[in-house]
Amino acid sequence: MEKNILLTIAYDGSGFSGWQRQPGRLTVQGCIEEVLSRLCGRPVTVDGTSRTDAGVHAAGQRATFRTDLRIPVEKLPRVMNDSLASWEKSSFQISPVRILAAEEKPPGFHARFDATGKKYIYRIRDGGSYDVFRRNYFYQIKDELNVEAMRQAAKLLRGKMDFKSFEASGGTPRKTTVRTVYDIDVRAFREDCGRTIELHIKGDGFLYNMVRIMTGTIVEVGRGDRAPEEMRAIAEARDRRAAGHTAPPYGLCLAEVYYSGEQ
Amino acid sequence: MEKNILLTIAYDGSGFSGWQRQPGRLTVQGCIEEVLSRLCGRPVTVDGTSRTDAGVHAAGQRATFRTDLRIPVEKLPRVMNDSLASWEKSSFQISPVRILAAEEKPPGFHARFDATGKKYIYRIRDGGSYDVFRRNYFYQIKDELNVEAMRQAAKLLRGKMDFKSFEASGGTPRKTTVRTVYDIDVRAFREDCGRTIELHIKGDGFLYNMVRIMTGTIVEVGRGDRAPEEMRAIAEARDRRAAGHTAPPYGLCLAEVYYSGEQ
Repeated sequence: MEKNILLTIAYDGSGFSGWQRQPGRLTVQGCIEEVLSRLCGRPVTVDGTSRTDAGVHAAGQRATFRTDLRIPVEKLPRVMNDSLASWEKSSFQISPVRILAAEEKPPGFHARFDATGKKYIYRIRDGGSYDVFRRNYFYQIKDELNVEAMRQAAKLLRGKMDFKSFEASGGTPRKTTVRTVYDIDVRAFREDCGRTIELHIKGDGFLYNMVRIMTGTIVEVGRGDRAPEEMRAIAEARDRRAAGHTAPPYGLCLAEVYYSGEQ
Repeated sequence: MEKNILLTIAYDGSGFSGWQRQPGRLTVQGCIEEVLSRLCGRPVTVDGTSRTDAGVHAAGQRATFRTDLRIPVEKLPRVMNDSLASWEKSSFQISPVRILAAEEKPPGFHARFDATGKKYIYRIRDGGSYDVFRRNYFYQIKDELNVEAMRQAAKLLRGKMDFKSFEASGGTPRKTTVRTVYDIDVRAFREDCGRTIELHIKGDGFLYNMVRIMTGTIVEVGRGDRAPEEMRAIAEARDRRAAGHTAPPYGLCLAEVYYSGEQ
């Protein structure tokens, strides 16, 4: 009897060429498929919810795959993690990928098509000197940002609207560029040296590089290069050139995926 | 007029084959020498205080070099950091090496030979699930360790004694294996999930892998596999086989180097 399994996956994206399988490149999908194919004794394809870019992390990526493997589903994370820890193609000493959970789903369920929403967290460090130990996880900005202005700007990007100005070229073609951002929350934590600013962004779907372009634009507001009120006009322009720069990939983390009944 | 310059350097050792220059490998010394050679227009050799192993980090490595470069010494960190940021041989998006300070020293001063002591910090996470984002910076241990027992064990390794049992083979031959450990401090911080334990170890000098073998042995005490009182007998054995395992490199960080007049 073939089962349909939903995995919850965390990964440090630093050393990967992104989620999506590409020949000759180290990708998260490729890594998981190889481990599963070895376990199952035949080629396995996994469908991830989000095709995260090179350098982007995940704390809660989801992926489905079909298998007739007879291992009880609750034991799958452990078996897969043991296999990931000894994955010979990787030059990592310890695995950058971790299977957090596995559960069986009805036959038709699909990790991407059935997702009702996602939450991303974008991490920034401001007002401190460059920290080598945070380089893969934070967008490090020397200037001190105006968090209150960033909050005002973020508020104007909430709701259902056309986010075309915040879409990079090069993504999968979409029928519509209208999306709903349920919430953008700007949190700041003062630390010993410098400060961490986190943007928590929840939405029903995201265009290509949308979170990074929104973040880059909000950072420009924080720097005082743009007024918070500009956000609505930027969205209304429906033109990528109206928005700010694309924030770097390494600050971004796919935090959670929602399915109906959750959130 | 040739100047003798002392650099203070931080680096994330994850992607490096250690400090020491090796042909065809990415090393921290190689990286800094290449940047300096380009700036100076001729080959430059730097002498580091500690030849950290592959995967080991530094928050305060020191290194000396001679130059007739006419850039004022206080501007050197900035110039070098700009050059490191665009270092084409590295596949890193942002530099894993940072020059924190530069100062001029008298002609005979040498970063290694004039050092009077060093401080290492070894970082452990215990009692939590494996965290992919900490894999390069912590020794992650599933079991909960007994910190009080670890403190008792650490206390017995303070002072001047023969540390031959805590020396790995393969290092530079030494005249004596007697060293003085000024202090070992075991600090614990409870966090959301799991706990961080830090060993702060200060000494006048360290044998090859000494901190990692001391840490491995203290971890075995924390696990309850050894009694804290065994430490003295292990040292007295003067035999590597009496001590515990070598803790992995990625938990280790060279925190500070001391010169006479400092500490």
